[in-house]
Amino acid sequence: MSTWGALVTYDTSIFQAHRGGKLATRSTVALASREDLSIAYTPGVAQVCEAIAADPALADTYTWVGHTVAVVTDGSAVLGLGNIGPRAALPVMEGKAVLFKQFGDVDAVPICLNTQDTEEIIAAVTALAPSFGGINLEDISAPRCFEIERRLDAALDIPVFHDDQHGTAIVVLAALRNAAQVLDRKIEDLRVVVSGAGAAGNAVARMLLTGGVTDVIVVDSRGVIHAGRTDLHPEKASLAAATNPRGITGDITAALRGADVLVGVSGGTVAEHALAGMAPGGAIFALANPNPEVHPTVAARYAAVVATGRSDFPNQINNVLAFPGIFRGALEARATRVTDGMKLAAADAIAAVAAEDLSIDAIVPSALDPRVAPAVASVVAEVARQEGVTRAA
Amino acid sequence: MSTWGALVTYDTSIFQAHRGGKLATRSTVALASREDLSIAYTPGVAQVCEAIAADPALADTYTWVGHTVAVVTDGSAVLGLGNIGPRAALPVMEGKAVLFKQFGDVDAVPICLNTQDTEEIIAAVTALAPSFGGINLEDISAPRCFEIERRLDAALDIPVFHDDQHGTAIVVLAALRNAAQVLDRKIEDLRVVVSGAGAAGNAVARMLLTGGVTDVIVVDSRGVIHAGRTDLHPEKASLAAATNPRGITGDITAALRGADVLVGVSGGTVAEHALAGMAPGGAIFALANPNPEVHPTVAARYAAVVATGRSDFPNQINNVLAFPGIFRGALEARATRVTDGMKLAAADAIAAVAAEDLSIDAIVPSALDPRVAPAVASVVAEVARQEGVTRAA
Repeated sequence: MSTWGALVTYDTSIFQAHRGGKLATRSTVALASREDLSIAYTPGVAQVCEAIAADPALADTYTWVGHTVAVVTDGSAVLGLGNIGPRAALPVMEGKAVLFKQFGDVDAVPICLNTQDTEEIIAAVTALAPSFGGINLEDISAPRCFEIERRLDAALDIPVFHDDQHGTAIVVLAALRNAAQVLDRKIEDLRVVVSGAGAAGNAVARMLLTGGVTDVIVVDSRGVIHAGRTDLHPEKASLAAATNPRGITGDITAALRGADVLVGVSGGTVAEHALAGMAPGGAIFALANPNPEVHPTVAARYAAVVATGRSDFPNQINNVLAFPGIFRGALEARATRVTDGMKLAAADAIAAVAAEDLSIDAIVPSALDPRVAPAVASVVAEVARQEGVTRAA
Repeated sequence: MSTWGALVTYDTSIFQAHRGGKLATRSTVALASREDLSIAYTPGVAQVCEAIAADPALADTYTWVGHTVAVVTDGSAVLGLGNIGPRAALPVMEGKAVLFKQFGDVDAVPICLNTQDTEEIIAAVTALAPSFGGINLEDISAPRCFEIERRLDAALDIPVFHDDQHGTAIVVLAALRNAAQVLDRKIEDLRVVVSGAGAAGNAVARMLLTGGVTDVIVVDSRGVIHAGRTDLHPEKASLAAATNPRGITGDITAALRGADVLVGVSGGTVAEHALAGMAPGGAIFALANPNPEVHPTVAARYAAVVATGRSDFPNQINNVLAFPGIFRGALEARATRVTDGMKLAAADAIAAVAAEDLSIDAIVPSALDPRVAPAVASVVAEVARQEGVTRAA
């Protein structure tokens, strides 16, 4: 191991846990006898193949696609590590796969692509789609992620869901609903600033609008996003049109003046003097990992409710509250996509689990709460059926 | 289930066994506590990602690629069913995956591609290759399968192995070695006719030549392949140059005149009058599934040793004797390819297991014999290391 010398500062217990990877397959059929083999494999399997050839919908019933998704990345925006490539991204995708299994009983397969070209990614995912019941896009950098998701969603008859966008957005909306409850405010009356306009920031802003927030301002590295900016790619130009109803310009300090809520999904930091302009008694969600945009003890000086993405502070806003249940529900309903209605229902379900023991330090359920994924799955499947976005059974 | 009416003639116990598919994933790490999550996923996983980014070879140790292969098909030549497409091929690929797990402890993932275009298949497999430690190509029709395998083998630093070609060829060579032993003949002196010049026939002919047979004649649907034929695609033209040393022309009857061995890998039938010309006391391997080219009771009139691909007759020549051990050994050695030397060693190992109880009805081990895959894996890894076709550890 030629570079072992460079690793001595790492935590050996972590490397021990990852040795051999974190994922394996298992057979769900007996293979002990010749008869077993003749049923699971040739010649018996031919009957199942012929049935699916005659009616492709039977694949949902007689293969593992009915409970299996691909976790697809190009390694371009992995955690806070950036563009580390497909091989180095694999430990994260395996981690995601075991979370899918643990919380949603969804079988997930990491697919790390050796290309960061939009067309090649779309072609590869389109090619392998018949092998899976859903596609979870992961850690693909903006703005490519928007086009990749949109085109795959249009091309495929299975759900395509970029978790960095929508998983985050769903849990943020759930948290904001409960924060409003705790603060005795109406979500419609809150002024919300989203710091960061990448995959997560874009989706959070849109989800909050869909969820009833009316005053959302998005800030990117160059300041407030508004209709007068000439440096915006199409996704941000669309955000400029949908947000910032009071036409604020300037930097994040200007955006936060009088704001009730800050949602940080930037990976950067927000200066304390900018927070000082917020309206008192609001909320700060500082979600960058591992280093929040604002340290929770600092945030607590300017907001009544504080949340982060970390497990070692209260109110952990973590995508794992969303994606296992979203896909479990979508697979059960044989959904062809994940609609806004399904996302809103998921946010409601997550919020409802926390509402049973709601407090200022528990606006979202624990990431380990086993009630969450089944609750999310149930409403997601229900809405998919109501909206009719399902394949024929 | 709209077509259920059409399925009433099927065997319901087979469909029951395939309900929900035959494969699942499982986590190999603990996920019970927040600390578990922080090790398996964020923030702990970032250390593993960074280590692999610095030294990609560490992916073999700290991800599942060290024990995982993709079973890739385009659904163009599935079993004896033909071009049934990727969805209908999935039950076979899942079956293959569970055999990989059962016999080789190799984790295999079915990848059924929604394209039959050579360039698109190569692009898709190249794109997803970082996710796996090997590529088992399966049920891709000839002659595309030859170019696809050759180009992927050249492009990727992991083994690419078209099982329909090489798995079959390895087990046929093992069976022929033991048949020669039983018959007290030398393999070098046998006249062998291969009926079928598709993926399996081509590879069987080449493997037998590599293994020491000197007189091989290949017959396709238009008759004996010889240098005078003008209707041959490049792979068959190459076969014409490498085989048929006595320059036989004509049909299979001409080819079988005086032949010691018939290997049927055609999916068709061979007429009894053609068999009547064979030299007495030889061997017939009629491997088409589910219907052998010659029924074993008919074959027994013209040959001393009879083998088929079926589990309900003696001497089942089944790829499962090869592929689990081949990939297990290749993965253990971090092999970059599967060489002729590794294939010959695998054939020897399979033959050696059967040699312990050699008889005219047991020239190959049972498909369920647990000794086979470890024996194959051991020699395959050893030869890979000897030949130096391994990635740096």
